[in-house]
Amino acid sequence: MLSDSEISRQSPRRPITEVAQSLGLTPHEYHTLGDAKAKVQLQVLPRLAAASCGKFIVVTAVNPTPHGEGKTVTSIGLTQALHALNKKVCACLRQPSMGPVFGVKGGAAGGGYAQVVPMEELNLHLTGDIHAVSSAHNLASAALDARLHHETRLGAAAFAQQSGLTPLNIDPERLLWPRVMDHNDRALRQITVGQGSNNGPEHSASFVITAASELMAVLALSRDLADMRRRIGQLLLAFDKDGQAVTAERLGVAGAMTAIMRQAIEPTLMQTLNGAPCLIHAGPFANIAHGNSSIIADEIALKLADYVVTEGGFGSDMGFEKFCNIKVRASGHAPDCAVLVVTLRALKSHAPTPPQDISAVDFTALQQGFANLAWHLNNVRRYGVPVVVAINRFPQDTEQELTWLQQAAINAGAADCVVSEAFSHGAQGALALAQAVLQALQQPADFHPLYHPEAGLQTSLATLAELGYGAAGVSLSDKAQQQLQQLQQLGADKLPVCMAKTPMSISHDPALKGVPRGFVLPINELRLNAGAGFVTALAGNVMTMPGLGLNPGYLHIDIDAEGNICGL
Amino acid sequence: MLSDSEISRQSPRRPITEVAQSLGLTPHEYHTLGDAKAKVQLQVLPRLAAASCGKFIVVTAVNPTPHGEGKTVTSIGLTQALHALNKKVCACLRQPSMGPVFGVKGGAAGGGYAQVVPMEELNLHLTGDIHAVSSAHNLASAALDARLHHETRLGAAAFAQQSGLTPLNIDPERLLWPRVMDHNDRALRQITVGQGSNNGPEHSASFVITAASELMAVLALSRDLADMRRRIGQLLLAFDKDGQAVTAERLGVAGAMTAIMRQAIEPTLMQTLNGAPCLIHAGPFANIAHGNSSIIADEIALKLADYVVTEGGFGSDMGFEKFCNIKVRASGHAPDCAVLVVTLRALKSHAPTPPQDISAVDFTALQQGFANLAWHLNNVRRYGVPVVVAINRFPQDTEQELTWLQQAAINAGAADCVVSEAFSHGAQGALALAQAVLQALQQPADFHPLYHPEAGLQTSLATLAELGYGAAGVSLSDKAQQQLQQLQQLGADKLPVCMAKTPMSISHDPALKGVPRGFVLPINELRLNAGAGFVTALAGNVMTMPGLGLNPGYLHIDIDAEGNICGL
Repeated sequence: MLSDSEISRQSPRRPITEVAQSLGLTPHEYHTLGDAKAKVQLQVLPRLAAASCGKFIVVTAVNPTPHGEGKTVTSIGLTQALHALNKKVCACLRQPSMGPVFGVKGGAAGGGYAQVVPMEELNLHLTGDIHAVSSAHNLASAALDARLHHETRLGAAAFAQQSGLTPLNIDPERLLWPRVMDHNDRALRQITVGQGSNNGPEHSASFVITAASELMAVLALSRDLADMRRRIGQLLLAFDKDGQAVTAERLGVAGAMTAIMRQAIEPTLMQTLNGAPCLIHAGPFANIAHGNSSIIADEIALKLADYVVTEGGFGSDMGFEKFCNIKVRASGHAPDCAVLVVTLRALKSHAPTPPQDISAVDFTALQQGFANLAWHLNNVRRYGVPVVVAINRFPQDTEQELTWLQQAAINAGAADCVVSEAFSHGAQGALALAQAVLQALQQPADFHPLYHPEAGLQTSLATLAELGYGAAGVSLSDKAQQQLQQLQQLGADKLPVCMAKTPMSISHDPALKGVPRGFVLPINELRLNAGAGFVTALAGNVMTMPGLGLNPGYLHIDIDAEGNICGL
Repeated sequence: MLSDSEISRQSPRRPITEVAQSLGLTPHEYHTLGDAKAKVQLQVLPRLAAASCGKFIVVTAVNPTPHGEGKTVTSIGLTQALHALNKKVCACLRQPSMGPVFGVKGGAAGGGYAQVVPMEELNLHLTGDIHAVSSAHNLASAALDARLHHETRLGAAAFAQQSGLTPLNIDPERLLWPRVMDHNDRALRQITVGQGSNNGPEHSASFVITAASELMAVLALSRDLADMRRRIGQLLLAFDKDGQAVTAERLGVAGAMTAIMRQAIEPTLMQTLNGAPCLIHAGPFANIAHGNSSIIADEIALKLADYVVTEGGFGSDMGFEKFCNIKVRASGHAPDCAVLVVTLRALKSHAPTPPQDISAVDFTALQQGFANLAWHLNNVRRYGVPVVVAINRFPQDTEQELTWLQQAAINAGAADCVVSEAFSHGAQGALALAQAVLQALQQPADFHPLYHPEAGLQTSLATLAELGYGAAGVSLSDKAQQQLQQLQQLGADKLPVCMAKTPMSISHDPALKGVPRGFVLPINELRLNAGAGFVTALAGNVMTMPGLGLNPGYLHIDIDAEGNICGL
């Protein structure tokens, strides 16, 4: 079989103007960037305000394993199949971060014959939105440190006199805003800045990966430009010495940050391998951020298409949970159907003692690991959403195992369970899945979120832990207890929770496979994300900046003699 | 008068396809990014290989003052005027860094009625090239630290076994490659990275602004994609414990860096306010880097247009010197004519005791400060290039002063000296300048560089100091002496010098105004830039990362009710 980039390069592409037209965009509602990408202008939103919405399909998965379950392949394959069935469909996906691209994982544009193309554009800069988020974010960091520097250097009175500005009196012990970089750079996790003469004050600091930043969440959750401007103004950068919030608005940097992100707020239109429209927009990670593509892209797609396919990062305990409890709350668009992606080898990995060779036939391991799928199936159904299970088939999978799993999933409450071969066969390989989804969409969805943030953060955390993960309870560290009190004082404890935890287990502990029971969810820290509109709860040891491994992906990437990018 | 951004927004623009066509590009030689920008594909280069070249006009200036001399305004005004005279002209300019945009200076797209439009696109991301340079640069930093981390953590033998890679044995005391950011972020000048457990080894590090980075110089000096790939491979990142170079090639990151910069190597086509073509490409600062736009853009413009206008950063001791001694050496394209920009107030600032009000009539100060102009005039003529002096007129300037200066400049050897009012009157305001330049181009140029790098670095430094700046001599610090020996051992002392010094004086000392004499140029440090192909010599205290001032530009930038960016 050809490599992903060969398939991407060799496939014929529709002109992007034709894709835009087929989606129902008028020529003045987008501008093209080459023949393969277009930025959709937000002026389309008022035109579509009164239009009815298409069906909203969210793709999720069991707990992921290091082998990869193929959720994006399945999302794109489903989109391709619906398109092949002459349905008016649009996919809404996140822009891949360059961190994983050059780290372990390789591209995040799907794979095989289920891809968004051109894959090398999607995987690298695309239209620069992630760079814009990094740049706006880091302007706030530079501005905060510079203000602290000048006020410290001159003293408040002289600062006021020389600058004409009101001193902010920033507390150097309460700086909250990190810097960001869209790379896996372990050495920047914990640093000291402001060293040397005239560069201070010296203080501890950190970089997080851009995809884990609050500003990325702001981009994904904003309804329009004015809403983004408002959210950016609310970003909490630090506290002053009186305990008052130093926001981006108060620092005077919110306008410039919005200007930097002026074009990033426009979704990028691309296409699948068979020419179905796809809106790529924003890229928050799902373990530390809320893990879903943008509300603006969804809004446009739902108004223009009859079927919209999107995905939440990692398992249904992560991206799907945040989709339901954070994103739907901001967008008002509830899902009509979910697709739960699973692989035989993932289920075998979730057995209490996973087999050495997870590709070999092993009914015992499969049946034991099935508990993880059953949990996710029930988890999605708890939200009132019908579920189709998609088994992403690998070459070694046997008919016998597949048949057993299909029946078991249906017995466990799936609306249907079908085998998907989108990776190898593109749209054709996902036709059965598309038919099953269309069938499931006949069922009325009865969506309801898991918790109501108005009940207060403590209640939300407990509900999420107990109902959302099956924990016996939740325990807050002393630090988190204090932070909870501060949030209550700030009147900010009625916001949804964005749980930062491992994606490898339903619990906070990656070692607890299958369906863990009886554990207590430990909350180490609570962080107010006033711009994004949620409180991040850190459960366990969650990395906000990945590192490059022993054999990083960048080693294999180069340009060939014709100037094409290879090895992605 | 309208603000720069109002003028930019209100002016009618030609479709960029029409601009491309007028320049002589065929439709498959560029792709459009919206209706205002296009990326020019490098496949145009072989087609034009045999074409003859147009005339090459380089705009330079006297030593700049904090008030701004209007060099870019003059470059764009001249381009507009030549275009208005129906000459086939193209401007080649650098992409502005966001550091100055949000710092002090505001936009760098010209100003008034001499602008490249749309100015908010030029001043912010444009087509993402600077972001690409930052990203590629920082991938190398992350890769270097990660490799050091894994080899240190495991030891060489276990590292080799587990990774399958040959250990590099990087010397943690000899890490050379900084990180970069396209912001003025003082707190990142001197930092400690790799703190905390499992993030190390901990070591001192720094960020420089992207425009001051070697990789930006590589982009600007590469002849084509293969040349850029080769130069990136040669980047010297560190030394190993045996004293051998750890290059980007040896680390295995050069291919991925090139992939990240695959689109950045294509110049961006824009237009002036009156529709003349303009290629924007690369953005090295002139005080710490070589201060000129790209060789690739020049090559395309010279083959397609009859007149190409470009500029070197700061005064003729900086960007123009580096144009002649670094860029021409790499490109083979010598200048046919220079334009030397001056303002009355700049000359008054260069008087030994500058007047309180530099806008008021003051013949004494003007005549004293004229020495600076005379020096730059002779400096340019030393390279065998005819010079037209352009007086960038300000409203307070009197006819009497202007007339005196014109005559004085001609007496001092200028081919002509004309008043330019491009800021207020666009093309019309620069017609006299255009005519003077066309006249000067009738003179045969007899270009020769100042020094021949083959004579060795010590000779090059001495020649540059004595002939290039009028110094009495050059003195190397102990550190620089040692580095010189190392460079000789590496066989890298036959490269041109890229002098990092203040732009505010012909000397290394910003306090020495006018024409300093008798000073000795102190070289504190020599840095091999093996990818760019020069050795940077640091003279005096040169800042590679600017800081935000007391009243930074970002405070005034926002979006308006219509979503337009304002305050740039």
